[in-house]
Amino acid sequence: MADTIQVQQQANGRREKDLLGEALVPSDAYYGIQTQRAQKNFDLSGVHVSHFPQLVEALALVKLACAKANNALGLLDDTKTSAIEKAVKTILAGEYHDQFVVDMIQGGAGTSTNMNANEVIANIALEQMGHAKGEYRYLHPNNDVNMSQSTNDAYPTAVRLSILLKHGVLVKALSSLRDAFAAKGDEFADVIKMGRTQLQDAVPMTLGQEFKSFASTLSEDIDRIAGLSELLKEINLGGTAIGTGINTDPEYAKMAVNHLSEISGFEFKRASDLVEASSDMGAFVLFSGMLKRLAVKLSKISNDLRLLSMGPRCGLSEINLPAQQPGSSIMPGKINPVIPEAVNQVAYQVIGNDLAVTMGAEAGQLQLNAMEPLITYNILESIRMLTQAMDMLKNRCVRGITANRDRCQELVDQSIGIITAVVPYIGYENSTRIAKAALESGRGVLELIREEELMSEDALQNILKPSNMINPQRRHH
Amino acid sequence: MADTIQVQQQANGRREKDLLGEALVPSDAYYGIQTQRAQKNFDLSGVHVSHFPQLVEALALVKLACAKANNALGLLDDTKTSAIEKAVKTILAGEYHDQFVVDMIQGGAGTSTNMNANEVIANIALEQMGHAKGEYRYLHPNNDVNMSQSTNDAYPTAVRLSILLKHGVLVKALSSLRDAFAAKGDEFADVIKMGRTQLQDAVPMTLGQEFKSFASTLSEDIDRIAGLSELLKEINLGGTAIGTGINTDPEYAKMAVNHLSEISGFEFKRASDLVEASSDMGAFVLFSGMLKRLAVKLSKISNDLRLLSMGPRCGLSEINLPAQQPGSSIMPGKINPVIPEAVNQVAYQVIGNDLAVTMGAEAGQLQLNAMEPLITYNILESIRMLTQAMDMLKNRCVRGITANRDRCQELVDQSIGIITAVVPYIGYENSTRIAKAALESGRGVLELIREEELMSEDALQNILKPSNMINPQRRHH
Amino acid sequence: MADTIQVQQQANGRREKDLLGEALVPSDAYYGIQTQRAQKNFDLSGVHVSHFPQLVEALALVKLACAKANNALGLLDDTKTSAIEKAVKTILAGEYHDQFVVDMIQGGAGTSTNMNANEVIANIALEQMGHAKGEYRYLHPNNDVNMSQSTNDAYPTAVRLSILLKHGVLVKALSSLRDAFAAKGDEFADVIKMGRTQLQDAVPMTLGQEFKSFASTLSEDIDRIAGLSELLKEINLGGTAIGTGINTDPEYAKMAVNHLSEISGFEFKRASDLVEASSDMGAFVLFSGMLKRLAVKLSKISNDLRLLSMGPRCGLSEINLPAQQPGSSIMPGKINPVIPEAVNQVAYQVIGNDLAVTMGAEAGQLQLNAMEPLITYNILESIRMLTQAMDMLKNRCVRGITANRDRCQELVDQSIGIITAVVPYIGYENSTRIAKAALESGRGVLELIREEELMSEDALQNILKPSNMINPQRRHH
Amino acid sequence: MADTIQVQQQANGRREKDLLGEALVPSDAYYGIQTQRAQKNFDLSGVHVSHFPQLVEALALVKLACAKANNALGLLDDTKTSAIEKAVKTILAGEYHDQFVVDMIQGGAGTSTNMNANEVIANIALEQMGHAKGEYRYLHPNNDVNMSQSTNDAYPTAVRLSILLKHGVLVKALSSLRDAFAAKGDEFADVIKMGRTQLQDAVPMTLGQEFKSFASTLSEDIDRIAGLSELLKEINLGGTAIGTGINTDPEYAKMAVNHLSEISGFEFKRASDLVEASSDMGAFVLFSGMLKRLAVKLSKISNDLRLLSMGPRCGLSEINLPAQQPGSSIMPGKINPVIPEAVNQVAYQVIGNDLAVTMGAEAGQLQLNAMEPLITYNILESIRMLTQAMDMLKNRCVRGITANRDRCQELVDQSIGIITAVVPYIGYENSTRIAKAALESGRGVLELIREEELMSEDALQNILKPSNMINPQRRHH
Repeated sequence: MADTIQVQQQANGRREKDLLGEALVPSDAYYGIQTQRAQKNFDLSGVHVSHFPQLVEALALVKLACAKANNALGLLDDTKTSAIEKAVKTILAGEYHDQFVVDMIQGGAGTSTNMNANEVIANIALEQMGHAKGEYRYLHPNNDVNMSQSTNDAYPTAVRLSILLKHGVLVKALSSLRDAFAAKGDEFADVIKMGRTQLQDAVPMTLGQEFKSFASTLSEDIDRIAGLSELLKEINLGGTAIGTGINTDPEYAKMAVNHLSEISGFEFKRASDLVEASSDMGAFVLFSGMLKRLAVKLSKISNDLRLLSMGPRCGLSEINLPAQQPGSSIMPGKINPVIPEAVNQVAYQVIGNDLAVTMGAEAGQLQLNAMEPLITYNILESIRMLTQAMDMLKNRCVRGITANRDRCQELVDQSIGIITAVVPYIGYENSTRIAKAALESGRGVLELIREEELMSEDALQNILKPSNMINPQRRHH
Repeated sequence: MADTIQVQQQANGRREKDLLGEALVPSDAYYGIQTQRAQKNFDLSGVHVSHFPQLVEALALVKLACAKANNALGLLDDTKTSAIEKAVKTILAGEYHDQFVVDMIQGGAGTSTNMNANEVIANIALEQMGHAKGEYRYLHPNNDVNMSQSTNDAYPTAVRLSILLKHGVLVKALSSLRDAFAAKGDEFADVIKMGRTQLQDAVPMTLGQEFKSFASTLSEDIDRIAGLSELLKEINLGGTAIGTGINTDPEYAKMAVNHLSEISGFEFKRASDLVEASSDMGAFVLFSGMLKRLAVKLSKISNDLRLLSMGPRCGLSEINLPAQQPGSSIMPGKINPVIPEAVNQVAYQVIGNDLAVTMGAEAGQLQLNAMEPLITYNILESIRMLTQAMDMLKNRCVRGITANRDRCQELVDQSIGIITAVVPYIGYENSTRIAKAALESGRGVLELIREEELMSEDALQNILKPSNMINPQRRHH
Repeated sequence: MADTIQVQQQANGRREKDLLGEALVPSDAYYGIQTQRAQKNFDLSGVHVSHFPQLVEALALVKLACAKANNALGLLDDTKTSAIEKAVKTILAGEYHDQFVVDMIQGGAGTSTNMNANEVIANIALEQMGHAKGEYRYLHPNNDVNMSQSTNDAYPTAVRLSILLKHGVLVKALSSLRDAFAAKGDEFADVIKMGRTQLQDAVPMTLGQEFKSFASTLSEDIDRIAGLSELLKEINLGGTAIGTGINTDPEYAKMAVNHLSEISGFEFKRASDLVEASSDMGAFVLFSGMLKRLAVKLSKISNDLRLLSMGPRCGLSEINLPAQQPGSSIMPGKINPVIPEAVNQVAYQVIGNDLAVTMGAEAGQLQLNAMEPLITYNILESIRMLTQAMDMLKNRCVRGITANRDRCQELVDQSIGIITAVVPYIGYENSTRIAKAALESGRGVLELIREEELMSEDALQNILKPSNMINPQRRHH
Repeated sequence: MADTIQVQQQANGRREKDLLGEALVPSDAYYGIQTQRAQKNFDLSGVHVSHFPQLVEALALVKLACAKANNALGLLDDTKTSAIEKAVKTILAGEYHDQFVVDMIQGGAGTSTNMNANEVIANIALEQMGHAKGEYRYLHPNNDVNMSQSTNDAYPTAVRLSILLKHGVLVKALSSLRDAFAAKGDEFADVIKMGRTQLQDAVPMTLGQEFKSFASTLSEDIDRIAGLSELLKEINLGGTAIGTGINTDPEYAKMAVNHLSEISGFEFKRASDLVEASSDMGAFVLFSGMLKRLAVKLSKISNDLRLLSMGPRCGLSEINLPAQQPGSSIMPGKINPVIPEAVNQVAYQVIGNDLAVTMGAEAGQLQLNAMEPLITYNILESIRMLTQAMDMLKNRCVRGITANRDRCQELVDQSIGIITAVVPYIGYENSTRIAKAALESGRGVLELIREEELMSEDALQNILKPSNMINPQRRHH
């Protein structure tokens, strides 16, 4: 038999063979010679495929979908198909995740990850069939597990699926954080405070409005992430090496995509131009851009929380963040806004990761993008970090925030910004003059308006009722 | 009369007055004292608002929509409303664009741009009413033109509208470029060539498939840009200073938005949370991310065009780009791929601009984002540059590309990659062995397959027909 | 004579000829056919070479240095050399800057800019020699003005020189801004205020220390920019097309570099590996990284100025920024920190530009970096914007800053942070307990220390003297 | 005794107490309550301080230097000092690295890392002294180990030291890679090949020159990194909380810095403005920019290696990269340039990390930068990844590269670019005409020159000797 990838059992392992020659693989390893080479070649991120369980699951699901399609086309026999199915199910059950040992950053456009999956599934299946690991003549990583596939369609498909699988967790953390802000919005609905634009006193609002705006801005991203994740459902399965579908049956692509939809629960559709889809990273660029947008929003909110809680005695002190740890090794009693600070840092990392994704995408050449492993790693890692950061922000900060009602009121009372409310009645110039006079003299604006008798006391009282300043009001004539 | 913003005509100009004091404004200037201050304060980008006609138009349209709403509410009389309308129309006719003189990069969250619009419109309107420029007691930039508005709602609304107005030009250039690639795809439909993954010979395809993939990838962005520009239609008009709608009538916001939809032709909708909408830059971040995605795609395509045309004698030379200029001051006869190189550079600039947008968005604080002028500038500039670059690429490069058919065929004939097509028949290991032998000996793979009699000549011939290698094929048994 | 680049005077211009054919060049244009082609090819940034006078001057100086070297080697006769010298001098006098018409962003690795210089100098020189523009048989843009040069050595050398010429202006603005901060540091030397870490009250300091720290951080960058600009003095002149020095005399490179040092006043040295130097963008990447560092510092300082001046009534209000323009179209009397806000935006743009530089540098291939025009543009533009921004910050903000002494003192007096000063005497735990009690009760820490009689009144008084809290102190036993 | 941080041994751990209350710490943990809180607060990067041994060592060295200074000043008694010294030495011996358990990304500006060090050292020291872990009355994490320090000076000092400790490994990998390229430069010194600019055939060079240029460009970075690491030697030790040196003896700072220099072997100097130095991230920004520059160079080199090895049959094929793993799961015999591809990806990650550093640095506020943990993490991680990537590139790629001499020669022979060498003799126009004719006819340039008898055969032969084309040559008259 002319099999160049053979196996020989030895005391300390089994000898496997590939294009480059032979190597000894440990007896208990389910991965094979190609995985092992990749493991030695790449020790870069230090993060292995197994670190992202969703990627392992996605690879397994793709392999199963393809096997089913090959079986239906009469290309893969029932015994092999059934063994592959069993292998995939044990992987989905979480048993062999530790066998996915290649580094997330790797050359070869994902070939190492794909071969890792092919080899692990083949060896699990071989054992299911009563053979020893490595007896690839009964079930072969390339000829059988990878049948009708190339790394170039199987890997990107698995990556898209892994993001879809992971994205639910992200959205859950996001909506849960949104809810926490909304609840605080309700709690603080009657706390009148000064709004600020460009860090300068502007006009009154409620602290509830402020917290509800945090909830609103996050709400939008729930919809947006859902919308953009649709783009990930367009896959190039069946395109094989470069999108021309070489070595596949004309019916195969459609069947494989359908099987994948069925077993994964996501409605995938085949890209209309498989050549384009083989090298295009557009969906990843946009999705990463969306993660960046979420990071920007979380960072802005964290900045606000830190500003509003400046103090305790020499800052705005409108709110208190719950204490999570002593704040200083030298200053007793100091409590720092450590949770939002950590969110800021995660946000900056996600923005940096987005740049790595962008550069990887731009570096694609001709029929493939060799940098897809980097893109994959950064998107999955950004999702993971954002999820952790949002859970942390919700549990260890937002839920415990309290308002300093008196302080908020006091600031409104002494502010100049309330002058804005009387502009429609006394004009922009009069108002400007009064504001300036108040500022220079240190006196209050109301006092000055009254002194000049620019408005009746009744009208003034009415206009300046807090409830009248925080919403549009019909003008009084 | 207690008007602190007054005017006094003098020989060399008119004296205007504001919160900070008086200044002399040139007689022929339609802008006023606040614009003039801003002009002196900011000389940074060197690019003025007038550089983006769509922004001028958008500002005018917003002012008109608000005037109409104010008029309908009985807040602004018919005379003033009509004068404002006439002023806006002359601006839309292109007559006063040169009066929009403030720098695109400015402090103040757009106040300078907004006041530039208020002052110019007021002065044009004053002349329409038979008054002299600066006689603001008849029509006032703040009290009348800016009535029921703040920079913080009028400016972002105008910016969104300006992008919508400009985005049509972008999409036109994009679809036109797409069409040019698609036409080349048709033209090259029968040119067989080697596909390459990771810059290594892979399997055959047609040059037509390659150019059609460029068309496909651009097509996607037409849809995507359209989809994301929807987000820009959510506006905060009526929120005034911080989104609470202070100084507006409860009916005003809805009316202003409706008027704007009507006169602009875009279907705007009021943001559901105006406080959030006042400080949120999310739509800009995502839209800029989309422009970045387009830049990444254009850069990737340009890289490919440069790779495929490497030569003339020592590279791939599969295609020729049309010569646009002599390529060297020292090497005679050298022609360089200057057009795609310029596209690459525009793409990198757009990616840099996206980072500026991101940082600007992250720097928003509390109820406002003071960096919105920077965000606006970069998005408008990126749209402009991408449009120019795509027109250039289409007219000066893509349309004139020719194929070197013989060269393409020759490379396929001598390649090893065609071995892939026989894998389903002779197995991955046999194929690997043959490929290796061919590579080492310098011989052809067909020759070696024949020598080993691994397949019948008929089967081999059939499999290796070009038309059979560039599409999925039913396997022969 | 076999000159393929010929000229024919016509009524509406002169016909010139190049590799691609003929074209009519306007009679009054000093540039020629190649410049004109470039002008038509590239309309991208909209910014022309003439926008950066230092680049025009640098190009002229490089051409002169090369002509002198060629003359000394007997390759260029005295008549031509002298005509070139006169032409260069008129350019340095500022007379022909408007003839440098090509777009800063261009394909061709700078060939268009280099040919623009070659053609303009040739035509000015021709007129000096009594010939008509375009009579290149008497003095030829390529054969004579570009003699012994390639774009690939002449252009990068000119770019380096242009940055050196411009960098003096940058450093001047920087040291002048530093001085302004230092002067404020002196002025505020006795204003005691609370220092803040992580936006929380920390321990006392003086406002003078704070402003001096702004001066210090900028001082470091003066040195650093000077240090890094040294790297720009290593040039590849004489390397011609790819660094091998093809078509140059073995003595030429050294002579050309020496002439350039002499006429420019900068001590240039020839790169030791000219092949490397032809494609390497390392000096630009690092120099741009340095500009980014300056941007980061200016942004941080601007953020601080905006934080410290938050108010007027509801923020820290420790300092006042001078009013430069009315701050709001709706809120009377509002003054915003528009100058620092504009500095922030310039900083973000510079950071974005640095990314464009990075991407351009990474995209170099084999013996050349085709993206050098983009790199050049962004570095020159960042220098220009930073210079403008620093002048603006100094003149329109820093110099006019005033301190709110009473407010600063009041915040110190009510702070808890002063507890830190007694830690060495009563221990971290006691201090923590007191701080906590103060915070919860709203009482002062001194009051509580006295109540518990933890220290003698004398010791306490001494420790808490402001002058003792803002510097290291010998511990009292 | 008034100790609020107490300890109580229990069966399942010991109870510790801090500002926020009590918690149970596992008996075998050397870290204490504050570390434990931080551990629970932050689970973000998933990477712990222990992942960077140099950071652990640096923290220990800083603590020892401070203890020595405190002891010399009579503030810390001999028993405690000696116990701290022993504890530090066991840490340096590698025994307690696993106790540094806090996440690299953390809020609090490094307080958690600093307290982790304080607590671990205190507990090891306590055991050395014969006490139980947690008996802080004998030796206290804050009062003793952290004496005269704040996180805000101890942590940044340790971070700087950790980079200095790590940077040697980076430079070693870098010079070793440089040597590998230089060796190949020697090996390929006589391989004549075409140089290419803008991917178009330019003029001849040797493959040796090309590989030597890789060595040269890396050489420069060895010097540059060394130069910039000097900046890291300026430290703020002694500045404590905000740089005013509160709670330190006037002699302390100088003594602590000297001790650190002595025990670490690096010559540290105290920053002249400690207030500035407490919040300034400038040295990190520039150093990270330098790492980015190295990444850009490595990426450019990797791109070149991939271009030059394009093939095996349909590309440049000038060099062969050693095979490291089978290249495809579908295409037999395919070998991909996986090693340079992986280097590209590391480079993009480093560029992304630099952006995270930049954003972190820009976000510093007032007297501190709370984002320093993010900055630290990204710089240490980038150094680690670059080191791994360079070792991989050297061992698994560069050393095994071979040249295809015949192919290189063949491309030169058929090229048009050699025409450049005769320009000084027959002029730019004649040469242009010949080049164009050759290109259009498919004939050779030499053939055409001979046909037109433009030069004597002797002169032509001499000029076109390879050895004469790859260096400057005296012109023949």
